[in-house]
This record gives sequence, structure tokens and C-alpha cells, in this order.
Amino acid sequence: MSENSPPYQIQSQDHESLTVPLLSHQQRSINSTSQVAIVGANVCPIESLDYEIAENDFFKQDWRTRGKIQIFQYIFMKWLLCFLIGGFVSLVGFFNNLAVENIAGVKFVVTSNMMLDRRHGMAFLVFSVLNLLLTLFAVIITALISPAAAGSGIPEVKAYLNGVDAPDIFSPRTLMAKIVGSISAVSSSLVVGKAGPMVHIGSCIASLFGQGGSRKYGLTWKWLRFFKNDRDRRDLVTCGAAAGIAAAFRAPVGGVLFALEEMASWWRSALLWRSFFTTAVVAIILRSLIDVCFSGKCGLFGKGGLIMFDAYSANVSYHLADVPPVLVLGVIGGILGSLYNFLLIRVLRVYNFIYEKGIIYQILIACTISIFTSFLLFGLPWLASCQPCPSDAPEACPTIGRSGNYKRFQCPPGHYNDLASLVFNTNDDAIRNLFTNDANSEFQLSTMLAFFVTCFVLSILSYGIVAPAGLFVPVIVTGASYGRFIGMLLGSHTNLSHSLYAVLGAASFLGGSMRMTVSLCVIILELTNNLLLLPLIMIVLLISKTVADAFNGNIYDLIMKVKGFPYLETHAEPYMRQMTVADVVSGPLQLCHGIEKVGNIVHILKTTRHHGFPVIDASPHSESSVLYGLILRAHLIALLKKKSFLSTPIRLGVDDAFRHFSADDFAKRGLGNVDKIEDIELTDEEMEMFLDLHPFTNASPYTVVETMSLAKALVLFREVGLRHLLIIPKVSGRAPVVGILTRHDFMPEHILGLHPLLVRSRWKRLRLQLPRLLKIF
Amino acid sequence: MSENSPPYQIQSQDHESLTVPLLSHQQRSINSTSQVAIVGANVCPIESLDYEIAENDFFKQDWRTRGKIQIFQYIFMKWLLCFLIGGFVSLVGFFNNLAVENIAGVKFVVTSNMMLDRRHGMAFLVFSVLNLLLTLFAVIITALISPAAAGSGIPEVKAYLNGVDAPDIFSPRTLMAKIVGSISAVSSSLVVGKAGPMVHIGSCIASLFGQGGSRKYGLTWKWLRFFKNDRDRRDLVTCGAAAGIAAAFRAPVGGVLFALEEMASWWRSALLWRSFFTTAVVAIILRSLIDVCFSGKCGLFGKGGLIMFDAYSANVSYHLADVPPVLVLGVIGGILGSLYNFLLIRVLRVYNFIYEKGIIYQILIACTISIFTSFLLFGLPWLASCQPCPSDAPEACPTIGRSGNYKRFQCPPGHYNDLASLVFNTNDDAIRNLFTNDANSEFQLSTMLAFFVTCFVLSILSYGIVAPAGLFVPVIVTGASYGRFIGMLLGSHTNLSHSLYAVLGAASFLGGSMRMTVSLCVIILELTNNLLLLPLIMIVLLISKTVADAFNGNIYDLIMKVKGFPYLETHAEPYMRQMTVADVVSGPLQLCHGIEKVGNIVHILKTTRHHGFPVIDASPHSESSVLYGLILRAHLIALLKKKSFLSTPIRLGVDDAFRHFSADDFAKRGLGNVDKIEDIELTDEEMEMFLDLHPFTNASPYTVVETMSLAKALVLFREVGLRHLLIIPKVSGRAPVVGILTRHDFMPEHILGLHPLLVRSRWKRLRLQLPRLLKIF
Repeated sequence: MSENSPPYQIQSQDHESLTVPLLSHQQRSINSTSQVAIVGANVCPIESLDYEIAENDFFKQDWRTRGKIQIFQYIFMKWLLCFLIGGFVSLVGFFNNLAVENIAGVKFVVTSNMMLDRRHGMAFLVFSVLNLLLTLFAVIITALISPAAAGSGIPEVKAYLNGVDAPDIFSPRTLMAKIVGSISAVSSSLVVGKAGPMVHIGSCIASLFGQGGSRKYGLTWKWLRFFKNDRDRRDLVTCGAAAGIAAAFRAPVGGVLFALEEMASWWRSALLWRSFFTTAVVAIILRSLIDVCFSGKCGLFGKGGLIMFDAYSANVSYHLADVPPVLVLGVIGGILGSLYNFLLIRVLRVYNFIYEKGIIYQILIACTISIFTSFLLFGLPWLASCQPCPSDAPEACPTIGRSGNYKRFQCPPGHYNDLASLVFNTNDDAIRNLFTNDANSEFQLSTMLAFFVTCFVLSILSYGIVAPAGLFVPVIVTGASYGRFIGMLLGSHTNLSHSLYAVLGAASFLGGSMRMTVSLCVIILELTNNLLLLPLIMIVLLISKTVADAFNGNIYDLIMKVKGFPYLETHAEPYMRQMTVADVVSGPLQLCHGIEKVGNIVHILKTTRHHGFPVIDASPHSESSVLYGLILRAHLIALLKKKSFLSTPIRLGVDDAFRHFSADDFAKRGLGNVDKIEDIELTDEEMEMFLDLHPFTNASPYTVVETMSLAKALVLFREVGLRHLLIIPKVSGRAPVVGILTRHDFMPEHILGLHPLLVRSRWKRLRLQLPRLLKIF
Repeated sequence: MSENSPPYQIQSQDHESLTVPLLSHQQRSINSTSQVAIVGANVCPIESLDYEIAENDFFKQDWRTRGKIQIFQYIFMKWLLCFLIGGFVSLVGFFNNLAVENIAGVKFVVTSNMMLDRRHGMAFLVFSVLNLLLTLFAVIITALISPAAAGSGIPEVKAYLNGVDAPDIFSPRTLMAKIVGSISAVSSSLVVGKAGPMVHIGSCIASLFGQGGSRKYGLTWKWLRFFKNDRDRRDLVTCGAAAGIAAAFRAPVGGVLFALEEMASWWRSALLWRSFFTTAVVAIILRSLIDVCFSGKCGLFGKGGLIMFDAYSANVSYHLADVPPVLVLGVIGGILGSLYNFLLIRVLRVYNFIYEKGIIYQILIACTISIFTSFLLFGLPWLASCQPCPSDAPEACPTIGRSGNYKRFQCPPGHYNDLASLVFNTNDDAIRNLFTNDANSEFQLSTMLAFFVTCFVLSILSYGIVAPAGLFVPVIVTGASYGRFIGMLLGSHTNLSHSLYAVLGAASFLGGSMRMTVSLCVIILELTNNLLLLPLIMIVLLISKTVADAFNGNIYDLIMKVKGFPYLETHAEPYMRQMTVADVVSGPLQLCHGIEKVGNIVHILKTTRHHGFPVIDASPHSESSVLYGLILRAHLIALLKKKSFLSTPIRLGVDDAFRHFSADDFAKRGLGNVDKIEDIELTDEEMEMFLDLHPFTNASPYTVVETMSLAKALVLFREVGLRHLLIIPKVSGRAPVVGILTRHDFMPEHILGLHPLLVRSRWKRLRLQLPRLLKIF
């Protein structure tokens, strides 16, 4: 540890044996990773969330004063909030579907009627202008009112649950933009989904309920005061995300599993129970609302949207001989899924590059895609040949004057256009057509191929627009189309019906792109309402995930990476085992004393952007100081704001602290409402006074010794859900704390930036070549 | 911290403000909690498992030398083992059902035929003697061959996954006793289940596969060498538990969720995927085997056992008006479930008290219960009146000469005895009768009541016998009986059929006793194969769990407590926030030096029973020593066994260590095969030599400062999965480590034993009065 050793001593050694800790050069650089990310469509600064309980004397005293009544209030409110979240999310989900079905329905009825009158040009004009207007509306409210509402929102919520606080993602503005934008984007015939936005909407509603009221609008209630912290909000947002999926697919169990498998970074048994309660509320309310709609009070909302649930009701029988084609489907799904992820990320990068030039470019791209989509959807059916109507069709054929499944389009009477039935329809109806029509002859082979290519291309191009856009429905419709295509190719060589192939195709593409297992399996089962499919869906999902994992990561993780969220993985990279925490920690370190001068505190807060400061005390026994704990920036600012300073440096008791402050002063407000040090005006006299930080300092911060391996520090940081991890020296006699680790210090970009040597070392190479395989260690 | 302060300084203070850490009296007592538990039926010493990765230089070097091929071997083996586990568990599960159906089937056919011949006395004799013999067989092989096989095994497996190593629970002996014992116990008409034993069997098979071969039987393969550690075994055992439920109920998704919600203490995304794969293998193999049986090659195995799956296939339609009775069912389920748990635990305590007196008492109790059961099952149907056979019965009525559902018993021709159809049948058939018979008139009200009381009483009495005995099936059958009873009571006031009430009753009793939510919901859905029931089952489960939680804990946790397993909860008790780690740590502490004399090591190992020892080094800068790391007892013994000692106290390089040792020397063998220090013979000369412990010491042990609050230390200990947690001093200049925390130090019994004051304090009182409510914080 001598200061004279060469800074990269390690370079002279054999790369294969990195046994000497990299610590030797005592590097103390500033963390170089950027602390900004693309949230929705715009670049914003991001911060970490405080999931650790700050156990200071003041809070401990506050907990002790809480009686049984407060505990009852807290528990009652938690369940009540879950109930309210479930209720609101199901109402929004229902309203969403109702609006889409009616807006898109009117559009299709109007254009179909014009087609019947042979006014083809007029029909195209109306169709494309309506689509363009709806897209424009979605883009403009997103870009102008809340850019954070763009995209599916799942990456943002996933990052939030990992501890990354992106500004504005849960504001009421974003909620409104997301709801309205999602309705108009989906109605505009773009190939975008509504499930992802529903997850974001659910999380947003949950987060708003978790604000603990709003002083600005006079919505305060003392029963809500216990929720002003990130831990409780995290639980509620997890329930909200589960409710979102439950409302989008009417899949309550699937929603819980989705939140568990894909969204949440921390999970407790109690959370499982509470999210299950939330989705149960969603399921029951949705069921009642749909019962109301069955009596025909919901306009064009017929079998639309939510009723995907009962899509597949045929009896299934299959044998071992049917397994090989299913395996092939899984492999194809894996390859296509990873290709889809690869292309989508490429397109997103291009879009992000263009979007930096201004809002006008964001609108231009959306308009181009809308016009291109209209051209494709309206033009393609002309290439398909007309089919005679089947004599035993379950509904009027061709459909006239309402939204239906046998589109006549340009065909003569008594015929229908099978491609128009798919593309000239909402995505939900297209999925239902593909899943339910057991008549194996309804679609032609060329139709299915054309539809698959259209969906694949359009969904990749459409996801990146600056409007709420989900991925679930596009992936399902694309997967169902190639699944049915393969079923048709196999023809009589298989016992399974084409519609079953469509379901399995959707499963394989979902597995290949999103890489979930249990949750996707349950969601598909709940969508199709047929438990007998279970073994086949399990095989398909396992194979497509395995194949796709050999190529790249799951789509949400890739998007999160493109957006630049510092997502903390559970597993440590192999090279982290060879490093110590001292190798990555960045300085300079700012310390506070237990009893500190106000001026110093203000100076520290103004000159740094750290969010936690170690508090040290003079040791009674020796000259060196001892670590007392860690104090948060937010708590320091709350102390300064209250201005109850001490004129002499004496130590305050907890009871004194309790007289001057209330727990509410330290509550973390939501929606990024934080007081800034610049807003606090202090006189010169006050600057010379003192503050006793002891009662407000978290006296039990987690610590690691500087020689701890980085991999084990990451496990501690990740599993316990920390924001700051103090590093204490191995040998006493130096400062009692030598550094603080935060989320950014564990990011591979930061570590590899500090130690470029690692990029070339065997450990990094290994990681790059076998990226997925190592993950499943 | 002065030594002069009174030992219980705190007593003079206000109990309500425990702000002064209890540390003040510097207590260093020996940990007083017992380190034994009841495993199966016998009391055994238990130990903790090593889930933490020991990152010493030697292992790091070993990891570096692993190439891509080894990583591929490791990953391939993990998946292959999962596949094999799934395969074996499904075969055992199938064989189990086949055997039960045939043995019990033959028994019922023989006795039924005697009844037809009016030889009632003879029938009773044969019935009760056969039952007694089967019970005796089960008890004797359990008591003599492997007492660890008694009971359901779920508490033992759950404790194992929490980090408690009970000897013998996964030995081949236990596996055999469990399989054979479970078959004979279930066939003997005792009200015991086979699902719990299947979970134990699955875990046992998984653990045996995870042994990394066996040197004794020559079953070694170098591809298996990576599995000789507790972490990989834990993953496999989790998959095995999931496979067990999947095989018992043919519920692959339910199995995964059961393992996640009830069994596992640590869960990773990769584990979700792997256990899903395992249960998929189970589902597919079971399906193929059942297809074989449909062709009639399986003897009396007709619709038995596994085919519960398709039990409920009627169409359901229900409205809001049906919700109130469902709510009532949930409340009743909660009350009955908690009563059931309460009584079962009482009976278990009595049994355990009696069992201590010897094996003969264990056998006597089992015989008594078997005879009592036979009397009840044979006697009760005489009280029921005979019913005329329905004209539209789906099968021959009354059933003659085979196992069937319309038992004639003592009735005249053309009549059947409805109570005999339930009690004079296997439990699986009784459940199928209750779940499927939509004919609302088949059972009389008095029959259902009698059946409910019989099941309730017998299942409580039977669980505690020294034989493999599960709880799932008894709980389901009891719940179904009172569910159907309530449905019959409501009569025409409800639209729901009686069989649907039976399903909901089973759900409510399961929820009230086992307190799971999502996993029970999915298991019931997979059993009944009807997704439309979902919202109703969700309501029932939520209500029954909520009601029951107000009274006591879940049945497996209660049993675990009776058995004395030191299960580590995720949540910290409120009083733990008010204490520091120094308040509970027990001494005396044994330290090793980095380069230690062999004689000293032997002395330390022989005089203590600790499993980890801090290793300290002389500091280069000062007189005090510094902490180097933690070395495990197992590793010290491996070093002593190899006898490659140093004649002078010099420091060894990693490369030297690598020359003398191989990673295999430090591999943890399974099945409790550990070397003992007593078995190692060392000469006096060797005792004077030295060992360099540095390359074998985990240089990155987790540490906490002595002033850390106990609650936060528990979070670290539990979330990261530790066995030892080092406590370092706050003020330097003393020893570099002041204590070690282990699992036992966090047990409430230990803490309250050290600080009896807490028992009276407000925090403890609060916990006792609102036990469940606080848990869901």
C-alpha cells in the first residue's frame, strides 16, 4: 500500500493471475459513470431511492411512541391502499379498452362502409388521416405534457423497483398522458400494445396513493403519514404493476407472477399476499364491469379487449408425436425473438439519436410511421385473393356495417378478404381470429406470411415513437401469425389445430423476446382458459428462452441498458471476485462531525452532490476519531430548514430533539419534491452556530472492510437494498471511514473505466463470450 | 462501557425508553439455546449450512484455472440433474399412486365382496387386520430404519432451505423408508396424505443427486465435482421440492409456486426457471405414464390418485349474489383452520412426550389409532340410511366387485350407502366424489356432517404417528366435506352447485391451515382444471388466511417450532431495533493467527464446537493485530488431515498451496459425512510444526460494527444467507474482532434468555398481542 508503487503495477504481471488486489495504487478518482438516463423520451438526471431504514435515535424514539392504534392505522391503510389501487387500475383498464374499441371500431366501420360503396380512394384517405390525427395527438401530448410517458414504461418501473428514481415517471401529468396517449396510439392502428402502458399506469396510480396525501391540494390525512418513505412506496408500486398486467389480460395470477419474475428486485412473502389481494380486486371488478357490457351498453365494445380471456376453448388432445413440431416452434421462437430484440434495440438507438435534435423530429418520425402503417394496412389486402364465405360461418360473412371478422374489403359479395380480416382490424381482434378460428381453411399460406412480416417490421418501427407503446400485444400477434403459418405448412402431418399452433407461436415469441417463464406460462393459460395446454406451453417457453438466451438478453433489460439506467444485477461478474472494494471507490470523501458548525454543513452540502455523509466523533481513548454513523442529505436539509441551532457545541438528548422536530419533518415526500440547499437562507450569525447531528444520524450503517471482495460487497448491497455502503479501514489509526460505495460504483462501465486492463483480461473475455451462460450460475 | 456500571443498569430506567444500548454490561455468556431439534421422530443435533462463498486465495485461484469447458460441464450438469430429478420424482410419484390404488383397492374389493355375502363380522376383521398390518409395517420401518422419515417432511425441508442441516433427512435410507412407509400408511386407510411425503421424497432425490457422486460405491465422475457445496445442493433441493408437489397433484406451476412461497428462504430468478424446467419434466412424464394406464395395464389404478386433475369439469356461472356465502365459507375456513392447527400442535406435543419413552410406545400409539380408525370407518356407515340408486348414475350402482363410488355396504340391492361411499374408500376417491358429483341429492346432510367430524378428528390424531404422513389430502378432504355441508344447508338460496362448494370449502380449509395464497390458488386450479373458478378461490383464500392469521401461525411453522428448528425469520422483532449486536453475542471467542502452530489449532478444534474461527495477523504499523479473515472448521480439518505442515513459520504463496492441495480436499461432502478432529492422529513433532492459514482463509467475511442494531444485523444475516457474522470493535486498539454471531444468536429464545427484562417490556408485549399483524409490516 505504499504510495510509491507504480500506478498500474498490475500491468507488469501475468494477466491470468490477478491475485494482487488492484488496491495497491490507491486510486481515488471521481466516479465517471453518468448519472443521467433516458426516461421515457428525454434525458434526465436520476437518483437512488432510500430503501434502507435510517435507524437513528430520533426515529427509534418515534417508533416507540407509536401505540397499537398507529400500528392498526398503518396496517389498515396498507390494505385499503391496495384495494384502492386494484379498484382504480381496473377502472382505468376497462375504460382504456372501452375507448379503444369504440374509437377504432367507428374508424373501421366508416372506412368499411366506404369500401362497400366502392369509394376506395376516399376510404384510404379517411383511414390514413384518422390514423395520422390519432398518432399526432398521442405524440403531441406525450412530447409536450410528459415525455416520461413515452414507451412502455416497464423499463422505468423495473428500474424504480431496483432503486433508481427517475423524475416525473409517477407524476399525475404522466398518468394522464399515458392513459390518453395509449388510447389514441392503439386506436390509430399502430402496431403497439396497451399492456406495457397499463403496467406503468398501475404503478403510477400506486405511487400516487403512496404519496401520503398532498399538502398542496389539501389532501392530507394523518393516517397516511406512515407512507412517506420509499420502502412502503416500493411495495405499493409492485402491487400496482401486478394490477396493471392483471387488468390488461384479465390474468390475476399471471399479474402477480409477472411482478415477481420480471419487475421486482426485492420480494417478500407479505408482498406476494398483498399483490395477490390487489389483483383479486382487479379480477372481480373487471368481471362485474364486463357483465354490464354483455347487456350491450358499451357501444362497439363487443368481444373486444379484455375478453381475450375466453379466446381458446376447443378441446385439445395431443400425443408424443406432436412434440417434435412444438420443439421446432420453440427453436424458431427463440431465434426470431432474439433477432427481434436485436433489431428493436438498433432502431431505438437510431431514434434516440434523431430525437436529440428536437421535438419536431419526434413528431416527424411518428407521422412517417403512421402514414407508412396506413399504406401497408390498406395496401396489402389488395394483394390477397378473395375467399368465398364458408357456409357455416359463426357470424355474418362478409361483415357489413360493424366491426367484425370477415372483412369484405374489395371483394365481390359473398366473399371475404382474409388478409383484411387480420390487418384491417384491431390487434386484439386479429389475435382472437388467429387463436380461435379452428376452421383450418380460413387463412391462406401467403396471407399468414404477409401478415407475419408486416407485424414484425411495423412493431419494431413503432415501439420507438414518442407515445405510450407496449410490446406484449405486438409480440403476441407476430408470434401467433408465424405459429399459425408453421401449423399450415405442416398441414396433415400434425394432429394439432392451426389455432393451437397460433397460441404456441405466440408463447414461443414471447419467450424468445421477454424471457420470462412461469409468469408468461400463467398469463397465456389465463388468456386462453385452457389448462390442458400447460405441458406444451411449458416446453415451448423453456426452449425458446434457452435458444434466445444464447444470443442476447431480455428485451426490457436491453432497453434499460440503452436508456442508461444503473440497474443493479443480482449476480456479480467473475472479475469482481478478484477485486476489493477499495479498487473501485471514488472520492473525495466528505465527513461531518457529530456536533458540527452550521456553516460547515452548508459548505459541504453546497460543494458536493452526495446524498449521505459519514458522521465521526472524537474518540475518548485515542487521538483518532471513531465512526458514529451516516446522515442523509435530506435529513441535514430538514435540520437546516428548521433552524433550531445550538449556540454552543453541546450534545442534545433525544427528548430535546423530539421537542424541536416532528417525524413529519423528515418524511420523504414523493414526486421528487425535495428541498434544495440553495433555497435555505441563513444569516452569518446562524452560520456560526452548531447542530448536534447525533440524534439524526443512522448509527447502524452497513459497513465493509476495505479488503472485502467487490463481489461480496455487491451481494450485500443488492440483497439488503442499500443506497450507501461505508468502507472502513482494515488497519486502525487512519480515518475511521475511507469511502462510500453507491450504486454507480458497482456498474461494470465504472469498474472497467477505472481498470481498463480488465477489459483485456481473461475474465472480461469470458464474460463477453458466454454472457448468458454465466448468468445462470 | 465502563466495567463498573451495574450489570442491569437498564432496570433502573423507564422501560418505555430503552435508548441506552443494553451493551453497557459487556455480557459474554455462552449461547443458551439448545442446538438440537426433533427431526422426523427423534431428537438429533443440528448444524448450519454454508451458503456463503468462502472467498479465499486458494479457491480464487481454483476458479481462475477453470476454463470454458469446466463452466460448460457445470451448466450442463445443473440442467441434467434437474432433468433427472424431474424424471425420478415423477416415476416415484407414479409408482406411489399405483401401489396405493392397488393395495387399497384389493383391500376394499375383498371386504366389499364379503359384505355382499353378508359376512359382516369377517369383513370387519379382514379390514381392520389389514389396516393394522399396513400401519404396523409403516411404523416399524420408519422407527427402526429411519426415524427421520416420520411426518410430512415439509418442516425439515423448509428448515434445510433456511440453512438448518438436520442429519439423515436426505439419506438413501430415509428415502426408502419414506416411499415404502408412505405407501403402506396411505393404503392402511389412515387419514394421512401423500403430498407432504412426496415433497420430502423429491427433496431427498435432489439431495442425493447433488452429492457429487459417492466414493464409497465408486460412483464418481469428475463432471460432478462442482456440486460438492451447500449452495448448489440448496438449489437442487428447491427444485426437488417443487417436483414433489408437481408429482403429487400433477400441478407443475403450483409446484413451482409452492416451493417459492412456502419452502424456499432464498430465491433467484434462475432458480424459478430451473424449478419450472423440473416440474415441466414431471408433468410430461406423468402424462405419458397415465396415457399408458388408460389402456388398463395398471391393475385397479383407474381414475385414482393423479387424475384428480380432471376432477371438476362442470361449467360454472355465478353472480355477485353468490359472493356472501363464499365470504362466510372463507371465515369458517379461517376459524376451523386455526383451530385445526391449534389442536394438531397440542396432540403433537403429547405424542412427542410419550414417544420419548421408547419405540414400543410409538408402535402402540400407531396401533391404537389404526384400530380406532378401522372401527370408525367400518362402524359409521351403519348409522347412515340407505339411498335408492339414481336411475341416471354414471356408473354401476351399487358397485360390485371393484373399487367404485356407489358402495352398497349393508344396504339391500338397488340401494347404496352414501357415507360408505365416502369413508369406505381411499381419500382420493372421496375427494373426487365430493368435487365431481353434481347430483345435489347424492349425499344426505347428516352424512356430510358425520364425514366432516370423522376426517377432522382422525386427521389430527393420525398426523403425529411415527410414519410418513402428509397433511394436504386430509385438509382437502375435511374442507371439501364441510364446504359441501354448507352448500347443502344453503340449499336453493344459492346458484352454485354442491360440488363447487366442496372445492371452495377445500380451498378455505387449506388457506386457514397452510396460509399460502398464490400457490394454493394455482394448485386448486390445476387440480380442478377450471380457470373460471379463479376469482372465487382467490376471495376464499384471502379471507380464510386473514381470519386464521389473527389466531395463530401456519401449520408448518408451528410444527417447526414444536420440533425446535432454529428457523431464521425475514422480519426483525421490534425489540431487536433497540438492541445492538454486542448485546446478544456470546463468548468466549477463539482466534487463530495467520501462521499458527499445529498444536494450537488442534487444541482449539478439540476444546470448542465452533465452526468458524477469525484469523488475525500482526499489524505492520502498530502493536495491535488486524483481522485477516475467517476460516472454517472443515477447512482446518482438511488442512490437518493432509499433514503438509511447515517446519518454520513462513508465509506460503498460493501457488505453493496449489501444489499441496486440490480443491477436492475442501469440497463439502453430503449426508453429514464430516471428518472429525478426533480421528486425526498427529505426532508430537507434527504438533510443533506450523500451518500458513492465509491461502485458506476467507479474506472477505461479512462484518458489522459492535454498535450495529440487532435488527439490521439480522437483515444482513438473513438476506445474504450467512453462517457466521463477525463483529468488529467500534474503537480501535482492542482486539480486531469482538465476537461472532451465528443463527442461534438471533433466536428470540436466546435473546429473551439473555435479557429477561425484554419479556416484560412493552415491545415484547406488543408482539405477543398482535403477533400476525406485525408480521405483515
